[in-house]
Amino acid sequence: MSSLSLTILGSSAAVPANGRFPSSHYVAIQNRHFLIDCGEGTQMQLTRFNIPIQKINYILISHLHGDHYLGLMGLLFSMHLQKRQAELHLFGPPGLNEIILLQLKYSKSVLNYPLHFHAFDPTARTVIMEDAAVTVETIPLIHKLPCAGFLLKEKTKPRRIDKSRLSKEVLLQHIVQLKAGHDVMNDSGELLFKNEEYTLPPHRSLSYAYCSDTAYNESMIEQLREVNLLYHEATFMEIDMEKAIETKHSTSRQAALIARACQAEQLVLGHFSARYRDLDLLLAEASVIFQQTSLAVEGETIQINE
Amino acid sequence: MSSLSLTILGSSAAVPANGRFPSSHYVAIQNRHFLIDCGEGTQMQLTRFNIPIQKINYILISHLHGDHYLGLMGLLFSMHLQKRQAELHLFGPPGLNEIILLQLKYSKSVLNYPLHFHAFDPTARTVIMEDAAVTVETIPLIHKLPCAGFLLKEKTKPRRIDKSRLSKEVLLQHIVQLKAGHDVMNDSGELLFKNEEYTLPPHRSLSYAYCSDTAYNESMIEQLREVNLLYHEATFMEIDMEKAIETKHSTSRQAALIARACQAEQLVLGHFSARYRDLDLLLAEASVIFQQTSLAVEGETIQINE
Repeated sequence: MSSLSLTILGSSAAVPANGRFPSSHYVAIQNRHFLIDCGEGTQMQLTRFNIPIQKINYILISHLHGDHYLGLMGLLFSMHLQKRQAELHLFGPPGLNEIILLQLKYSKSVLNYPLHFHAFDPTARTVIMEDAAVTVETIPLIHKLPCAGFLLKEKTKPRRIDKSRLSKEVLLQHIVQLKAGHDVMNDSGELLFKNEEYTLPPHRSLSYAYCSDTAYNESMIEQLREVNLLYHEATFMEIDMEKAIETKHSTSRQAALIARACQAEQLVLGHFSARYRDLDLLLAEASVIFQQTSLAVEGETIQINE
Repeated sequence: MSSLSLTILGSSAAVPANGRFPSSHYVAIQNRHFLIDCGEGTQMQLTRFNIPIQKINYILISHLHGDHYLGLMGLLFSMHLQKRQAELHLFGPPGLNEIILLQLKYSKSVLNYPLHFHAFDPTARTVIMEDAAVTVETIPLIHKLPCAGFLLKEKTKPRRIDKSRLSKEVLLQHIVQLKAGHDVMNDSGELLFKNEEYTLPPHRSLSYAYCSDTAYNESMIEQLREVNLLYHEATFMEIDMEKAIETKHSTSRQAALIARACQAEQLVLGHFSARYRDLDLLLAEASVIFQQTSLAVEGETIQINE
């Protein structure tokens, strides 16, 4: 079990084709559940892949092209109809809230759970969510609409108890203190267990970046340096470069160049144009540049080793 | 080949479950192509069942609960991205246009085909579309929101040429006149071919009614008298009557009572609650009352004999 896992829900570009659904990623990080983009049919995909919709705490929407958010309203309604009470945090560009409120108005619905909408500026690099273990920051992208990717990073994790050092002298309350990074003292203030002797270094902190939709964009390389898992759109192949430029999308090769430049550990390609039924050539084009590349496959889960 | 056929695209109630998609019907009548309701995922279902999206001329939306229209925006965008130029007529309750325009605004899109929006009053029985061969009228339903069903009726069809009477004396231009219902005269005004001797009576005119969502509603019986194909929602079974009353939906038995009362030829049940995985009991409940009942099965096409 890794502390960070990604499940692909949708891998298609704007027009869903070849059985592929539009963009959506489900990311679990240390018991926090993120949905990143929510194209049409996302709720069906969640159900199909046995991910309970009520687990989701955070929804991040990159931009207001339909293939990235048109599944949101249906998901919000289904959460409501299935009696959700837990609060939900929604992050998106300005305007998304207006779209939701208008549709709630015409369906005469009042959601029975708190939906907190947090608008962000897609043109700025901003930390939009932070808690004890995770931060989420926006990645300004280059697209026809204001559009932001998302960088999800684990903070430094707690040190781990060295089980080989445990004995009956080490009580439960001592373990709690050791895990929290403290030395353990007795009531007289004398050192009982020195933290570094009883613990191991923490597992490494993992990171995942979602970059869709964007033209080739070197300005994000510095922000993504050494990211563990990079998802980068690859709508087209190099042979369709003109189309990529016209629509402000990337080619598979360009995605790989970004992955190489930022020294990512692993690259996942997605947002595939309807024109490609078979994706092997897209994979080949990227793999030449960056070997640790895979295709987004709906229903597949990728875990990063800690 | 019948002149009227129905293909089921979605058969689920509000929360899509058990692999079923929310409401949508595709109806072809004499080369006119209607989409009736457009729940989330309708465009994927059209593609899956090999129905080209650009064939659709008319979209009818019954009401503004999400499961009946949330696939519309994605379909409109895909038509646009696939370079549609032909005009599209959209009929729906007031408010639908505002929802569409707001989403076009935020995606900075101008559709490259003419989209004509026709608002109707769901509480009134009104002919909302009429041409040489077909009429569409609203059926006021009883639901939590203003909601209308649709009755699609063929007008009287042309008489058919009696091929057994054809000879080399009957020229192409004569056939055109005979088909149009005229006797054929020569240049001196003398009768050459009497229409009724060279033609057979027209095929019967067919009708299809779409009734979703509604509580049990006897007031529509008179409007639906002798309808050929009746689609009536059957969200619940009788055992869940309380839920049906609370949510203003029908039971399977109630759908059959309506079909029997209006002397429909055939009944199709749909809009099945997520609580029923297996639908055989719903079918049984209706069939006791009205024998010619079938379940809506996604991808299946129903044709009526002319």
